[in-house]
Amino acid sequence: MEAVRARIASRALTNGDRLPSIRGFAGIMGVSPATVVEAYDRLVAEGLLRAKAGSGFYVSASALLPLSLPESVPAQARAVDPFWVSRQSLDAGPDTAKPGCGWLPPDWMPAEALRRALRNVARADASVLTDYAASHGSHALRRLLLARLHGEGINASANQLLLCGSGTQAIDLICRLLVKPGDAVLVDDPCYFNFRALLRAHQIRVVSVPYTQNGPDIAAFETVLATERPRLYITNSALHNPTGATLSAHNAHLLLNAAASHDLTVVEDDIFADFEPEPTIRLAALDGLNRVIRIGSFSKTLSASLRCGYIAARPEWIAELADVQVATSFGGPSPVITDVIANVLSGGFYRKHMEDLRQRLLKKQHEVATKLRSIGIEPWLMPRGGFYLWCRLPKGCDSADIARLALEHDIVLAPGNVFSAAQTSADFMRFNSAQCDDPRFWQVLAQAVQAGRAQPTSVESKHG
Amino acid sequence: MEAVRARIASRALTNGDRLPSIRGFAGIMGVSPATVVEAYDRLVAEGLLRAKAGSGFYVSASALLPLSLPESVPAQARAVDPFWVSRQSLDAGPDTAKPGCGWLPPDWMPAEALRRALRNVARADASVLTDYAASHGSHALRRLLLARLHGEGINASANQLLLCGSGTQAIDLICRLLVKPGDAVLVDDPCYFNFRALLRAHQIRVVSVPYTQNGPDIAAFETVLATERPRLYITNSALHNPTGATLSAHNAHLLLNAAASHDLTVVEDDIFADFEPEPTIRLAALDGLNRVIRIGSFSKTLSASLRCGYIAARPEWIAELADVQVATSFGGPSPVITDVIANVLSGGFYRKHMEDLRQRLLKKQHEVATKLRSIGIEPWLMPRGGFYLWCRLPKGCDSADIARLALEHDIVLAPGNVFSAAQTSADFMRFNSAQCDDPRFWQVLAQAVQAGRAQPTSVESKHG
Repeated sequence: MEAVRARIASRALTNGDRLPSIRGFAGIMGVSPATVVEAYDRLVAEGLLRAKAGSGFYVSASALLPLSLPESVPAQARAVDPFWVSRQSLDAGPDTAKPGCGWLPPDWMPAEALRRALRNVARADASVLTDYAASHGSHALRRLLLARLHGEGINASANQLLLCGSGTQAIDLICRLLVKPGDAVLVDDPCYFNFRALLRAHQIRVVSVPYTQNGPDIAAFETVLATERPRLYITNSALHNPTGATLSAHNAHLLLNAAASHDLTVVEDDIFADFEPEPTIRLAALDGLNRVIRIGSFSKTLSASLRCGYIAARPEWIAELADVQVATSFGGPSPVITDVIANVLSGGFYRKHMEDLRQRLLKKQHEVATKLRSIGIEPWLMPRGGFYLWCRLPKGCDSADIARLALEHDIVLAPGNVFSAAQTSADFMRFNSAQCDDPRFWQVLAQAVQAGRAQPTSVESKHG
Repeated sequence: MEAVRARIASRALTNGDRLPSIRGFAGIMGVSPATVVEAYDRLVAEGLLRAKAGSGFYVSASALLPLSLPESVPAQARAVDPFWVSRQSLDAGPDTAKPGCGWLPPDWMPAEALRRALRNVARADASVLTDYAASHGSHALRRLLLARLHGEGINASANQLLLCGSGTQAIDLICRLLVKPGDAVLVDDPCYFNFRALLRAHQIRVVSVPYTQNGPDIAAFETVLATERPRLYITNSALHNPTGATLSAHNAHLLLNAAASHDLTVVEDDIFADFEPEPTIRLAALDGLNRVIRIGSFSKTLSASLRCGYIAARPEWIAELADVQVATSFGGPSPVITDVIANVLSGGFYRKHMEDLRQRLLKKQHEVATKLRSIGIEPWLMPRGGFYLWCRLPKGCDSADIARLALEHDIVLAPGNVFSAAQTSADFMRFNSAQCDDPRFWQVLAQAVQAGRAQPTSVESKHG
């Protein structure tokens, strides 16, 4: 390969020239013909050569152009908007600390179980490896998910479940089906920032309701349903993102009654469910998948690399959602991927993995909360599980300012207002306990908090 | 597991009951405690039991409900619309013949290479198996794709390439960015049916231009640009779906000039490129990725199960498309999947695989064309490659009628008008040469054609 590259660089070979025959070049180089074939083939894959059937190998028309391929696309300077955390976290370099990101580090995830599952799926029928899935997704995972839903008291039948590309894509498909540009959609304040980015992409009017430690403020919820007539309400019932709070049974009941009297559809995004130490009430179970749509994924508990989510809903909605998914993606997740997930979920591994994770996270959450309190940052509540701590900063600190400063030190934080449709959370920040190990993070945070406290440009003077 | 199931069925154990301890049940059954743990765990995965940390296993609240899980969701009776072929093909049972579908059978696809690649990726870094990809997709595949684009004379830089979930999703993202409801989008008549389904999902006004054996009819193209002002034109330049025709160099030049004078953006969907015996002209190369957006995928050549597409375009569009993809799917394809593809593409395997496929298809295309001609069905042209034959039926035959009839015999066909925005193709049908082996198909087709010829309700009398 180096010999060919050198000849092209020195223009001994140029655009369109035929390369020496396999046999001839093998003789010149003193290697086997198979080695030359492999080298030529790799140069074809790199775009330097072109193979013509039955005629040999030729130098590509563009072989002389310099190929600039940086490791990654540089993150853009951007506003502290709902995209801020995702793009900065996704495109972070290996030396970046990410206490603001929404997932566990690789060494918390079950890599060995995934390796085993991949080796198992490598032995699957050829059709699993090469064919499209059925429109509702492959059977093994759908069967397991239906069983899990039944276990939660959600008695979905086979035509009430659709696999899709991710939890986010689940909501996207639902918005395509049930909402049109200009409609109002209700979210919690605060809520997962990407709900806001997604709704913006749909040109939807976002309205919000304050979130309390027991779910949405029900009086405010009823008012906003009456005045704004939202078509959808998107929420997390347990281990709410970012607060870690959990909906109470009483609020769940009131919420569903209010939804019924205003014909509101509720999307219950349950991706953190398996982090709960004990299951709590679910809107989908109370409602029996009538006006509640359940969505979920395994990105937080198994692997974010796998890309698979699901939707459980009324049969007629599932049929329409399957059509929308075919029209816009020609189907759902890869059958290779869904079989890997089914492989990990069946048997006892997953339950033990989640028990271990919960134990480890419980300890970590308390350690990080203690450290945060020691620099004046107070968790709004101690969540029953999961990895988020939603915290109030000391008086005078603006979380967007601190996040911008931290980014200069290669630290990605999640400032409060990216979660807040009403922009009420400038003095809050979400921390991911499992991503807080870097000492630089604690240094920069402590300094920033101290500086914020000392400054006259307080949050109140800027935002209140 | 059977013993537990029997106890639940006989109501010896019921909702909420605690199961015997591991040790106790192992004693009763005469097996090891590890066996009991495994059995309980599997029953948890099936939803029959629930594990409570530190307390044991309990019968699920819903364990007594019958679980009805049919192998697949029954295909719906539906109109012969743009969804018809996809849903019938995707949800076809194992005994269904699919001469209408748009992909190769599993035994034409490189299953062994995919198995090898999966085993290789099973050894990758834990982060590949568990983390999200960077916003533009993982590095290895992007690098190979850029090299391939350079090899075609499309000198894209790293910030001009985005990986996404499929070729279809590529177009979906582009529509989200560049088109709004009510805008016009131009397609060929005939064109790939799912373009029509996709545009319908976007509430886009579809306009069309007749497709000739050398590309779109350029006079008609210029007229429709002037009168309808479409925002986008979506096409396949080589081995056009469904016709198999290829754009001529002269038409490519005229088309781009017309596009420039009406500020039209062109989406060149190139998923059949690697089936060409020799590369032909590409709009993306002529234009230099200015107003042309190139999309592609490996669903037709490697595996439809893998779910990965790409978009090459102007840097500012790629940056915005990456944001839209994060907002609506939280990222692109699985890094596991993109590494599997990169693994298969690097080295010489892929080139040899495609040479073999082309040889095998060439033979098959001629065999099937000969058989079709023998029952009066005439290919509109013999394509230079690929697996489609776009054929005119004998006078009197309506392709939708024949497709409905064939479906009663478990045969999925692709009737002409699902491809035609202007509904001009009632007497055409698209056949997939690689999917025509079932003798039942030839029987049913020959009979249907004969019946159609004999009937007075001809296409002419019904459709004008």
